[in-house]
Amino acid sequence: MKKIIPTLLTSLLVISCSQLQATSHAPVNTVTSNIPKNIIMVVGDGMGPAYTTAYRYYNDNPATPEIEQTVFDRNFTGTSSTYPAPESGYVTDSAASATALSTGVKTYNNAIGLDINRQPIETVLEYAKQSGKKTGVVVTVQINHATPASYLAHNVHRYNYNAIADSYIDDGIKADLYFGGGWEYFIRKDRNLVNEFIESGFHYIDKYSDINSIPENMPVLGLFDKTNLPWALDDTNKHRLSLMTKAATKQLENKNGFFMLVEGSQIDYGGHARDIAAAMAEMDDLAKTIEYLEAYVAENPDTLVVITADHSTGGLTIGKKTERSDPNINSKYLWKPEFLRTMTMSPKTIAMRFTNEDLSLAQVNDLLSFDISSQDLNNLQQAKLSDKDIVKQFSLLSAADKKGKRTPKNHQSVLNVITEIIDMKTNTGWGSISPSGTHTGIDVPVFAFGKGSEMFNGFQDNTDIAKKIFTLLGKK
Amino acid sequence: MKKIIPTLLTSLLVISCSQLQATSHAPVNTVTSNIPKNIIMVVGDGMGPAYTTAYRYYNDNPATPEIEQTVFDRNFTGTSSTYPAPESGYVTDSAASATALSTGVKTYNNAIGLDINRQPIETVLEYAKQSGKKTGVVVTVQINHATPASYLAHNVHRYNYNAIADSYIDDGIKADLYFGGGWEYFIRKDRNLVNEFIESGFHYIDKYSDINSIPENMPVLGLFDKTNLPWALDDTNKHRLSLMTKAATKQLENKNGFFMLVEGSQIDYGGHARDIAAAMAEMDDLAKTIEYLEAYVAENPDTLVVITADHSTGGLTIGKKTERSDPNINSKYLWKPEFLRTMTMSPKTIAMRFTNEDLSLAQVNDLLSFDISSQDLNNLQQAKLSDKDIVKQFSLLSAADKKGKRTPKNHQSVLNVITEIIDMKTNTGWGSISPSGTHTGIDVPVFAFGKGSEMFNGFQDNTDIAKKIFTLLGKK
Repeated sequence: MKKIIPTLLTSLLVISCSQLQATSHAPVNTVTSNIPKNIIMVVGDGMGPAYTTAYRYYNDNPATPEIEQTVFDRNFTGTSSTYPAPESGYVTDSAASATALSTGVKTYNNAIGLDINRQPIETVLEYAKQSGKKTGVVVTVQINHATPASYLAHNVHRYNYNAIADSYIDDGIKADLYFGGGWEYFIRKDRNLVNEFIESGFHYIDKYSDINSIPENMPVLGLFDKTNLPWALDDTNKHRLSLMTKAATKQLENKNGFFMLVEGSQIDYGGHARDIAAAMAEMDDLAKTIEYLEAYVAENPDTLVVITADHSTGGLTIGKKTERSDPNINSKYLWKPEFLRTMTMSPKTIAMRFTNEDLSLAQVNDLLSFDISSQDLNNLQQAKLSDKDIVKQFSLLSAADKKGKRTPKNHQSVLNVITEIIDMKTNTGWGSISPSGTHTGIDVPVFAFGKGSEMFNGFQDNTDIAKKIFTLLGKK
Repeated sequence: MKKIIPTLLTSLLVISCSQLQATSHAPVNTVTSNIPKNIIMVVGDGMGPAYTTAYRYYNDNPATPEIEQTVFDRNFTGTSSTYPAPESGYVTDSAASATALSTGVKTYNNAIGLDINRQPIETVLEYAKQSGKKTGVVVTVQINHATPASYLAHNVHRYNYNAIADSYIDDGIKADLYFGGGWEYFIRKDRNLVNEFIESGFHYIDKYSDINSIPENMPVLGLFDKTNLPWALDDTNKHRLSLMTKAATKQLENKNGFFMLVEGSQIDYGGHARDIAAAMAEMDDLAKTIEYLEAYVAENPDTLVVITADHSTGGLTIGKKTERSDPNINSKYLWKPEFLRTMTMSPKTIAMRFTNEDLSLAQVNDLLSFDISSQDLNNLQQAKLSDKDIVKQFSLLSAADKKGKRTPKNHQSVLNVITEIIDMKTNTGWGSISPSGTHTGIDVPVFAFGKGSEMFNGFQDNTDIAKKIFTLLGKK
């Protein structure tokens, strides 16, 4: 018997592990004894596999011979396809993908919680709330943005921001906690939704410093900026997602458990802006958030954490040119994240300062925390003149001609030169082109830990993730 | 007891699956009863995650509402980091990565089967041969190229092609089967290695048509071209890797089992050339090869197949520009592989024909199997003139000035325009820049099926793959 057991166990293991993978596209059946009390769904918006890989090298401590394993490496379970419904082709937007993750249904790009027939579909957050759990959303964009909206609302188009915000009250309040940005949509001339939340019994805060003094067991609305929060690199707290998530888990804890959506929202913005410095700082905030959640699960083992991306953005490429440009490195293939590790403000902030001040080469070097060439400085000065000209030309247009056009930013060309300098220094590439990097169709990684996390092993579709969460929430 | 068993099994399953992942960086212990007789290691050179994802959409049948699952999707098990030894930074070349996959040791870029101290390290192929198994390599480049050489040889630099070829005889013949290209290195003025193989008892073939009439149980050398085989799109058999692999499994079968390396070698060349049409045809040959191996494992369940990439190449991006350019698709995010599905020859062949013939717009459209604009044709004609000029300028250089410079190809500018047209049609992006796309540091996917395949679940390093194979070969 002693000899048989290991073989039996091995067979069981082999069969079970492969079944877990084989069933990923089939209706999900799980063992009810493994159901978690709390489920935390984490979305890295735009966080394709190049971002989690790049973060490993950005995070590497050059003083040690080994490359440190990241929170992503140790919690990797599988991969997910992200394509939308056929009418939208093969590449998803954040709305269709978040709707797939929240409902288990493929839909068209721009859809918020609707199917292809423009009919509302139940979300995992709605189901969790109805099942008696507390619910919450913690994001670094406005709380009515595509990803959180896809868990909380139903609308034909993601850009109907006021209507989506209104629905947070008008369709019944679905969450016990909202952390993110959004004054512009929640405190309007025509309607003050913040007051309506307060009248409905909510505690309201608008500063990070108030986040640890929320009355116990009270629902809470925290709006910390007009629309999106600042870049992590520029924020008063560079780990503001971690801060908000920590407060949120404490606030949501209760005997029936909770469902919470956490979004590292601005990784996607880094990809659109083809800004590796901003993107890596957003990744760092997300990584620290997940490290906190590892500690939380260690204390609360009846909690499941699932992490994925809705899509990848910008075509981030770890390596741009083939050249033996670094005498210290025995390779013609290079990526040099060391220049990113010391940056203390975003390229956008540096661009705005360069535009509005008269900075010397030494001052620019100081802001970037690495040295640029006099040619680089010359390119920046040319871009500053170009920006002035673009702004002036626009100001000369008639009101009729301005209509439908975006007011140009007075620092856009300077910003483009700065991100190009950083790309050249670090040898970072982007597969999608300016001015705004596009979404890309590459499969995204899936990470999970805690109770029930083995369900997320192997290849799956983004709709499977919602189906598995519905199952873990007890939906038949 | 009945109630306890499912819970116990679930716990075992959970513990075992997570242990499989958690141990991926620890010394590998496995259960000896699950050891396969045959091991087939498949490398897709340059096949990062964008390639396996793009292949799903390239392979999609638009006549059906669903997106067909690929052989990659159904065999996905995990992911692998690829970074080389510290002296070479974070981005690997094919030699260091293949050495990691063949030996379990990190080394410097360009190293073939050596460690960072330039000392030889045993490879899984060598160990398998010494253990009494038959061994073989099947590739679509010259058989002394970096990947196969890293399993068969030990050399300080991958480009020492003659020395590596010589070592295939001089260090003792290590394989029973070699399929690929390489006349230039194996039939030289100074040495005819083909004759030496024949004198050592090998059967030699140089045409695909002879591949099914190799005497049974005889070792075989098959060299089918001067260096690399033609692009899959241009070859007489567009599935030549599949053809060679099928013949190889039959030839290598024996009571002690075999270890075989199969490489889809030219996916990487597609990435370097930033040629999505060529790359997808190479992917299709590899996919058909793996489909054949699925059938082989179904018939021979004591076989393990492990598939991964050594690195990704070119920064392939599934989507380049954000624009609502296709009236049939409700999205501003697009990838349109339909133009690739009908191509019957490589962009390189079309470029050579355009350069050497006087083709009309209709004739170019016919070669591409889609319509280009008159502006595109104009760009091609300009490129043709530019190529003529580049070739002429080079011919005027003195012998001294020519030294160290590559003779320019008379169709290179035309080829660049053709691949750019295809990128615009399909909305394909490349994160690394011309003239030759670079290697990129993104983690690569891992696929496995057959006996022992569950060992390859989750996150691992490329060195772990060799360590696991050594364990499965019985090495203590």
